Amino acid sequence: MDNNRVYIFDTTLRDGEQVPGCQLNTIEKVEVAKVLEQLGVDVIEAGFPISSPGDFKSVVEISKAVTWPTICALTRAVEKDIDVAAESLKYAKHGRIHTGIGTSPYHIQYKLNSNPDEILARAVAAVKYAKKYVEDVEFYAEDAGRSDNVYLARVIEAVIKAGATVVNIPDTTGYCLPSEFGEKIKFLIDNVPNIHKAIISTHCHNDLGMATANSIAGVMNGARQVEVTINGIGERAGNTALEEVVMILRSHKELNLYTNVNSKNIYKTSRLISSLMNMPVQPNKAIVGRNAFSHSSGIHQDGVLKNRENYEIIDPVEVGISESSIVLTARSGRAALKHRLDLLGITLEKEKLDEVYEEFLLLADKKKDIKEDDLLMLVGEKVKSEHRIKLDFLQVVTGKNMVPMATIRLDIAGEKFTATESGNGPVDAAIKAVKCIIHRKVTLQEFLIQAINKGSDDIGKVHMQVEYDENIYNGFGANTDIITASVEAFIDAINKIGNAEIAAAK
Amino acid sequence: MDNNRVYIFDTTLRDGEQVPGCQLNTIEKVEVAKVLEQLGVDVIEAGFPISSPGDFKSVVEISKAVTWPTICALTRAVEKDIDVAAESLKYAKHGRIHTGIGTSPYHIQYKLNSNPDEILARAVAAVKYAKKYVEDVEFYAEDAGRSDNVYLARVIEAVIKAGATVVNIPDTTGYCLPSEFGEKIKFLIDNVPNIHKAIISTHCHNDLGMATANSIAGVMNGARQVEVTINGIGERAGNTALEEVVMILRSHKELNLYTNVNSKNIYKTSRLISSLMNMPVQPNKAIVGRNAFSHSSGIHQDGVLKNRENYEIIDPVEVGISESSIVLTARSGRAALKHRLDLLGITLEKEKLDEVYEEFLLLADKKKDIKEDDLLMLVGEKVKSEHRIKLDFLQVVTGKNMVPMATIRLDIAGEKFTATESGNGPVDAAIKAVKCIIHRKVTLQEFLIQAINKGSDDIGKVHMQVEYDENIYNGFGANTDIITASVEAFIDAINKIGNAEIAAAK
Repeated sequence: MDNNRVYIFDTTLRDGEQVPGCQLNTIEKVEVAKVLEQLGVDVIEAGFPISSPGDFKSVVEISKAVTWPTICALTRAVEKDIDVAAESLKYAKHGRIHTGIGTSPYHIQYKLNSNPDEILARAVAAVKYAKKYVEDVEFYAEDAGRSDNVYLARVIEAVIKAGATVVNIPDTTGYCLPSEFGEKIKFLIDNVPNIHKAIISTHCHNDLGMATANSIAGVMNGARQVEVTINGIGERAGNTALEEVVMILRSHKELNLYTNVNSKNIYKTSRLISSLMNMPVQPNKAIVGRNAFSHSSGIHQDGVLKNRENYEIIDPVEVGISESSIVLTARSGRAALKHRLDLLGITLEKEKLDEVYEEFLLLADKKKDIKEDDLLMLVGEKVKSEHRIKLDFLQVVTGKNMVPMATIRLDIAGEKFTATESGNGPVDAAIKAVKCIIHRKVTLQEFLIQAINKGSDDIGKVHMQVEYDENIYNGFGANTDIITASVEAFIDAINKIGNAEIAAAK
Repeated sequence: MDNNRVYIFDTTLRDGEQVPGCQLNTIEKVEVAKVLEQLGVDVIEAGFPISSPGDFKSVVEISKAVTWPTICALTRAVEKDIDVAAESLKYAKHGRIHTGIGTSPYHIQYKLNSNPDEILARAVAAVKYAKKYVEDVEFYAEDAGRSDNVYLARVIEAVIKAGATVVNIPDTTGYCLPSEFGEKIKFLIDNVPNIHKAIISTHCHNDLGMATANSIAGVMNGARQVEVTINGIGERAGNTALEEVVMILRSHKELNLYTNVNSKNIYKTSRLISSLMNMPVQPNKAIVGRNAFSHSSGIHQDGVLKNRENYEIIDPVEVGISESSIVLTARSGRAALKHRLDLLGITLEKEKLDEVYEEFLLLADKKKDIKEDDLLMLVGEKVKSEHRIKLDFLQVVTGKNMVPMATIRLDIAGEKFTATESGNGPVDAAIKAVKCIIHRKVTLQEFLIQAINKGSDDIGKVHMQVEYDENIYNGFGANTDIITASVEAFIDAINKIGNAEIAAAK
């Protein structure tokens, strides 16, 4: 065994999928499993087969579809669970049964109504029973984070003797501090005689926001498998995020640890999971959030433009994001303004720049996002309205038991164009109508509506990302009517394609 | 000074507000500052006054509006910045100037194009200059996380001698591991002779997902101020989350540290910031996410129902959330099903429960959310349709340059009622129409639309929270048409009011 390799055990499809509203069907699960295989994870926990017929079927289908990763099925320390798990894994090229039981005083006393010796015996029996079916058996000591270390060491030694190949030390309630969790792993290394015969695994929950730090403390103290989910999804506050662990190990070369994950696939995988599970990733999520690599304050923007390493420790390209974006707001400094004007093909003398910058700040205090139009206005260039598309008129009829339809009139270079289309929903209909008029092969990549409001009127903010000619353009719209906001976001993106073409032609 | 107290320095209005799209106007900032005062924070960083006229004005207005917390204004190590900051703080009852400069090789060489001795001299000069205006001066050593510890200790000793009352050790790029960051603080305690004359502060960013763990490692090694934001917002991957630090210190009594924060106000404050800044909190965010206290897997639900401490380390009431919710999905066990049926006033024999549970699992594999209607169907009770409201027909006309209008027909106890209303947006119009018919005084508390999709058709999921008679009811709707989904969510919530009344009457 290569002692510097940390194995990635992905439980997006088991622990992640337990989240209310995140359930996937078998076809979706197989799709996710294939993407995880491409990402380079070592183990895919595919389900908890006894829990429902759908879960059983998913483990079977994933076992058939996936080649390299080990496929793991969860069980309680119960024979029937293990029988069903073994059955579900029969097509797996590398199958693992993951069985276990609670070892903390809370679990032994209140949940299991038992005693430490009986629990130890049940743990050993379950591992031995699972060994009859598969060579690779992982044991979890549920709530290990709150278990007594001496008792935990006894249980771990016994299950390793019974044949466990991996021993999972979960911080089930997300309670541990990193120092405490690291010491727990170290205690096991020092006090379990046969510990070298198994791989120690961490499974940390994020209830206090420290799942990632706990997992890292685990590997720094000798664990060599981490149990993670994409985007850190999972019950309650979720699990350790795969992308965070992988990028910490890549960034901290002094740890001398590595994983098999192809980091360039991280962003793509994150988007897929978010979309399939309908779990939005918050903009400030580490590594994969929309803002994770964007800078808006003047000091930071200036620093990044001088040398990326001033403020960025990871090159976004490493996780599959094309470039860090610079957003203009009231916080932006002269350097950021100059950079953006350069991109628009406008070069100003220092004095003129200072003058424009003062006006820019006044405007930015009133307006949250400064768009390219606004910049062109500030520098005195008239917005080239002959190249720009405006939403002149929009009428939408939709409802229940109706086919949504939209009529749209666009003003393009002063000329009016009208189109009507129907669609799956009102936004779909309106976008189809816009496409009828503009004749560009644009593909909608992402469509995010945010409407958070108190009171009864709806204020909608819409972000859209469209692809055209292998480039990505972002559009934004805000309106009390979310349909209008959506259409404006789409037209905003289309206009940026036009702007980019103008800038390129200069 | 009480050595067990950790001061909470909230920078939601400065570092948090730097985020693209999160900018607040002065009125909103004053509202946030008052809420932070109620929450019990010790220091409010109100802005960076030199950066824009709006920022200056906000610091002035917050200084006037707030009584107890210290008001802090950020500057660079530049005299003009400090002059403007001092001017902005003139109405503050307790004013603090926060000045500083980069101390890492990256910053000294690439960003500031300077050398270590010159930077040290500028740091000292800035602190002395600020001391002319205010007694309370905080110094930040930007990018301290990547600064050489020996040089950092020299700078810190020099600025304390110059009069700094607080020394801020930021991990500006979010690079540090908790062990490393803790050692850095310990190194300063051991190697800065006058360190006891100042408070050490941490300011940790979340680029690798370890901001909270780093801050805690800081206080465990002697820091006594933490710089945080509500919901962990901030540039890129954000800052340390206030709610996480506060609840870690409350949960880990062995650390013997406390803050002045009234944790019962945490949830309310989190919602306000999310709503004002239009920054959604992801469902699995620790402490304040929608799912943070909800359990859906069978094993966990069973455990929580037996004893909350099996899986919950924090009572949701402590952070101002009324109760942990149990959601029924394909992962739910018998105990959860029984619990939910109990709430509906239905008690089943064990055998009947087993039978219903099997049917429940089959249904749950097909349907992601199991609603109360579905449960009533499963147990053979006919849904009391005479008490239930159904959306029979909805027609919406909206668009640009139009007043949105909605016509709605509801089926209530078999009778049809129709109403038409106009509103600010199509959802507003439709909800007004529903309210015309139902005659209940319901207040919409929260309205969240999620539409994430690839391709051009819009699939919308809508969550609504309504208040009626001092109780909160959640509604959910999903439809390819986001307007219909919104109306269905509202009607779902209204129906729950009815169900609760039926259950109460039993």
